[in-house]
Amino acid sequence: MELEPVRLDRLNSDTLIVPAPPSTPYVRVIPLGGCGEIGRNMTVVETNDDLVIVDCGLMFPDDEMYGVDVVINDFTYVRERTAKLRALLVTHGHEDHIGGIPYFLREFPQTPIVGTPLSLALIKAKSREQKLGEMSLVQVGPGDRVRYGSIDAEFVHINHSVAGACALALRTPVGTIFHTGDFKFDQTPIDGKPADFAGIARIGDEGVLCMLSDSTNAERPGHTLSERIVGEAFTSIFSHAKGRILIASFASNVPRIQQAVDHAVRFGRKVTFLGRSMQNVVHFSSELGHLRIPAETVVKIEDIDNFPPERVLVVTTGSQGEPMSGLARMSVRDHPRFRIVPGDTVVISATPIPGNEKSVYKTVNNLAKLGATVIHGTDGKSHVSGHASQEELLLMLNLVRPEFFIPIHGEYRMLLQHARLAVQTGVESDNVFVLENGDVLQFTSEFCDKIGKTYGGHVFVDGSGVGDIGEAVLRDRKALSNDGIMVVVVAIDSEEARVTAGPDLISKGLFYLPEAGGVLDELRTETLAMIQEVSVEGMRDVNTVKEHIRSGLAKSIYARTKRRPVVIPVVMEV
Amino acid sequence: MELEPVRLDRLNSDTLIVPAPPSTPYVRVIPLGGCGEIGRNMTVVETNDDLVIVDCGLMFPDDEMYGVDVVINDFTYVRERTAKLRALLVTHGHEDHIGGIPYFLREFPQTPIVGTPLSLALIKAKSREQKLGEMSLVQVGPGDRVRYGSIDAEFVHINHSVAGACALALRTPVGTIFHTGDFKFDQTPIDGKPADFAGIARIGDEGVLCMLSDSTNAERPGHTLSERIVGEAFTSIFSHAKGRILIASFASNVPRIQQAVDHAVRFGRKVTFLGRSMQNVVHFSSELGHLRIPAETVVKIEDIDNFPPERVLVVTTGSQGEPMSGLARMSVRDHPRFRIVPGDTVVISATPIPGNEKSVYKTVNNLAKLGATVIHGTDGKSHVSGHASQEELLLMLNLVRPEFFIPIHGEYRMLLQHARLAVQTGVESDNVFVLENGDVLQFTSEFCDKIGKTYGGHVFVDGSGVGDIGEAVLRDRKALSNDGIMVVVVAIDSEEARVTAGPDLISKGLFYLPEAGGVLDELRTETLAMIQEVSVEGMRDVNTVKEHIRSGLAKSIYARTKRRPVVIPVVMEV
Repeated sequence: MELEPVRLDRLNSDTLIVPAPPSTPYVRVIPLGGCGEIGRNMTVVETNDDLVIVDCGLMFPDDEMYGVDVVINDFTYVRERTAKLRALLVTHGHEDHIGGIPYFLREFPQTPIVGTPLSLALIKAKSREQKLGEMSLVQVGPGDRVRYGSIDAEFVHINHSVAGACALALRTPVGTIFHTGDFKFDQTPIDGKPADFAGIARIGDEGVLCMLSDSTNAERPGHTLSERIVGEAFTSIFSHAKGRILIASFASNVPRIQQAVDHAVRFGRKVTFLGRSMQNVVHFSSELGHLRIPAETVVKIEDIDNFPPERVLVVTTGSQGEPMSGLARMSVRDHPRFRIVPGDTVVISATPIPGNEKSVYKTVNNLAKLGATVIHGTDGKSHVSGHASQEELLLMLNLVRPEFFIPIHGEYRMLLQHARLAVQTGVESDNVFVLENGDVLQFTSEFCDKIGKTYGGHVFVDGSGVGDIGEAVLRDRKALSNDGIMVVVVAIDSEEARVTAGPDLISKGLFYLPEAGGVLDELRTETLAMIQEVSVEGMRDVNTVKEHIRSGLAKSIYARTKRRPVVIPVVMEV
Repeated sequence: MELEPVRLDRLNSDTLIVPAPPSTPYVRVIPLGGCGEIGRNMTVVETNDDLVIVDCGLMFPDDEMYGVDVVINDFTYVRERTAKLRALLVTHGHEDHIGGIPYFLREFPQTPIVGTPLSLALIKAKSREQKLGEMSLVQVGPGDRVRYGSIDAEFVHINHSVAGACALALRTPVGTIFHTGDFKFDQTPIDGKPADFAGIARIGDEGVLCMLSDSTNAERPGHTLSERIVGEAFTSIFSHAKGRILIASFASNVPRIQQAVDHAVRFGRKVTFLGRSMQNVVHFSSELGHLRIPAETVVKIEDIDNFPPERVLVVTTGSQGEPMSGLARMSVRDHPRFRIVPGDTVVISATPIPGNEKSVYKTVNNLAKLGATVIHGTDGKSHVSGHASQEELLLMLNLVRPEFFIPIHGEYRMLLQHARLAVQTGVESDNVFVLENGDVLQFTSEFCDKIGKTYGGHVFVDGSGVGDIGEAVLRDRKALSNDGIMVVVVAIDSEEARVTAGPDLISKGLFYLPEAGGVLDELRTETLAMIQEVSVEGMRDVNTVKEHIRSGLAKSIYARTKRRPVVIPVVMEV
């Protein structure tokens, strides 16, 4: 049991001013998102003359972010250095690494986007949906190096739950920054290509100034299981199931889809793909050679009923119980083209992302009620994580042997645990930086220090608005969601200081109206009395009348119902 | 791997009419809550002349129940049979088994409430908070039998994460109904009292018509670990920690509190208790002899700073990250009397209830940021479940050997898995009933069948209102929480068919107003134009004007922002 906390005294910088660059060569590392949270990963690497970005992801809103569609990063630091911006390097094609790119390109449309073929295909699909213009895409493969001014980027093959995932070695005049991306070490991966151990070791041998590494599973002891374990679970399921099989997975989990397809072939089932993103990924991945599907195995969803149930496999999205996904709609008999029947076996080949547990289990319950046998990923067999556990994180640290270390991609507790692991492998504890988003870490040949802080906060996307709503609007939405709203409208002749129409009371989300008529009548009478108590001088001042109504009515409603709706008085002078 | 679904064809009854009782003796079992959900456990057991209730719990609202405080059961079935109501039997004192009692007593104030001393103490505390009048409490101990008309209830000692938990054997003229309550089989419990195996076996030998059993962990293979395992984790933590130790637990988890206290004594630490419910439970449990605390070990929170950190233990509530709990407030430096400092060790001796994950981990992250070492219950050592896993459920089935079986206390997937276990022990699959709340199951000497359905839905408590808000109000609150509200007020002289004041636009939760002034001005101009387009005849009909404004403005707002606020037009005729 580890009980020694690492040094935290570097955490409390709150200056927003980044000093002017010194005349000596430097390299700065600035995480803009993904530190202290899961999602919207983005890291800036900047030398005196050049700036590149590693990933630009999005985060899904939590329950407190009422009505927000997605959360992206604050691009201010990049905006202030547009002239130095050279490229956006993409480690892999997951939403939390590429989902912010469409918003980024609105501001910086000419930026070259550099990545492996599947990453670029997924970005292209996304840009088509959002009707972006022409992009500048630079395709690379594992082992390739690209140079942007003083920064040389090498793409290094690692394993992850998507094809074409890479780590990045960024060589700069001050030293090498090694960014692991999201990774695991799978000794028996489905595509037969374990991580490029030799490449990583060679980069480590050359000397690495600073490593940034994936902390998602830093609290998990041992070694993440190989993707091949899921194959064994699939074999057992395919051997037993007498009816149709449905497998739900993340669309981007190409190795998982490959395993599903391989089992369909082996057990003589036809396969059909459901969900737009699933169909997209299958299409790109097949074209790019990441996915091998015999043409005669695939059938259209419309034709699936031509085959007996024991000859059918459906691969679908919806593994997170997302309300509008195919699987969730099937579970409530709302899918236009697919109906769950008793005898179907549904495999949810994923685990719930924290916050999604309730919706996933709701889907499981609903599917079971329709008679399906449901196997869900929490059994530890029909799903394995795509992220490295402690033993793999230690191996990565020992291969790379960085002088400095920054745990990224995780909540604070994960970053902290990862920091402890780094210290165990021999990184000086003063050289481990548990950063917050926006912290600016600067390396020169002499020093390394946190020199300031830029904007690292959440930018909310709501409808077509980016960043135009903030905490105040969310607070209002929260208040509205708690006890609804009561609007009081009254027309006043302020010359004569008398009510000429109303008060009318309009409530929403407060009472069940068919039964609340009596209460509303009483409140109306009380409101009128409140207004009539206002002095003649008061009646001539709209704000006085409003405040009388607001506070008086709020009290009356609370006394009757113990509820606190938002009360909005509207006083019209006519 | 179990792939055979149990028979489900009994699930689809939707008649709401319970037929008149036949002249032959019967016993009915009606779960009113807790089937297909976690929470608000309540079961009615009814013979021709008598009706008793087992437990009356509450459920905490989920994210979709905007503004709801708690969810309780629909008492209609009991209300229609008030003359037969004899007693409310309580298995143990957890909120999901006693939390609905104050609401129940408002309607049925004279009902005897029968339970073990700690359960009654917790109910009394609750009734004091809610200012209920005198209650009719009947205290029993394990092994006691109480008779209510034709129903004889025996309380049977079992293990659970609260003291004084019992199963119930309800002997009726038609046969015995055995209700396990919440249970586990702990062979090495802290109080030295394993479950009453002999008693359960004796009841099984006599013959049990129907068993209802706890399904919470029915999906979990193996045997739930003994409470004693937590003691081993505590020993390791107390041996290593150099500063203060804080242990967060459910207040009602008396065995856990006992272990914390025992370790304080053994390692020479003083203990203080934080949180009102924790202090209450410690007080009652000590009085009742469930909790043994040497007087010199306890100190007041105000005096805690008189002791060196390595001599201090704090036992607190807040293990679920509840926003206003002591632990959550400490984690953001908002606690009036306690400040977390680096070196503190915080043990969260519980696992998150589904839906609470995000708030628990937020608390963990915040505590870690303050420099505390945080150990949380998901390590499988510093917390064990209070509910039986599969091996224990099988043992209970084999001890009781019921003719009929009803899995209760769980989501549908758990009930279904528990049903499969019952079939494995030899219960006929036609005799296993996976029920929904409100299903009325009737046994006679000849038959058993589901004879109807009563009201088993959610009753929402919001403020002082019980059951006065429903789905429509929640839908409104959801809409308000997504994109806020826009109220348009206009005064019209309908005789002259012209606008005399306004339109005024008031929005809440839609825009960030300081920046939205321009948009509001444009929308106001457009709204005025919309009204002026209405014909003279239309202007004389308020509803026509309203509908023009509502639909036109909704379109304008969506075109500008892609948001869909609730739009409320208010037209005043003056």
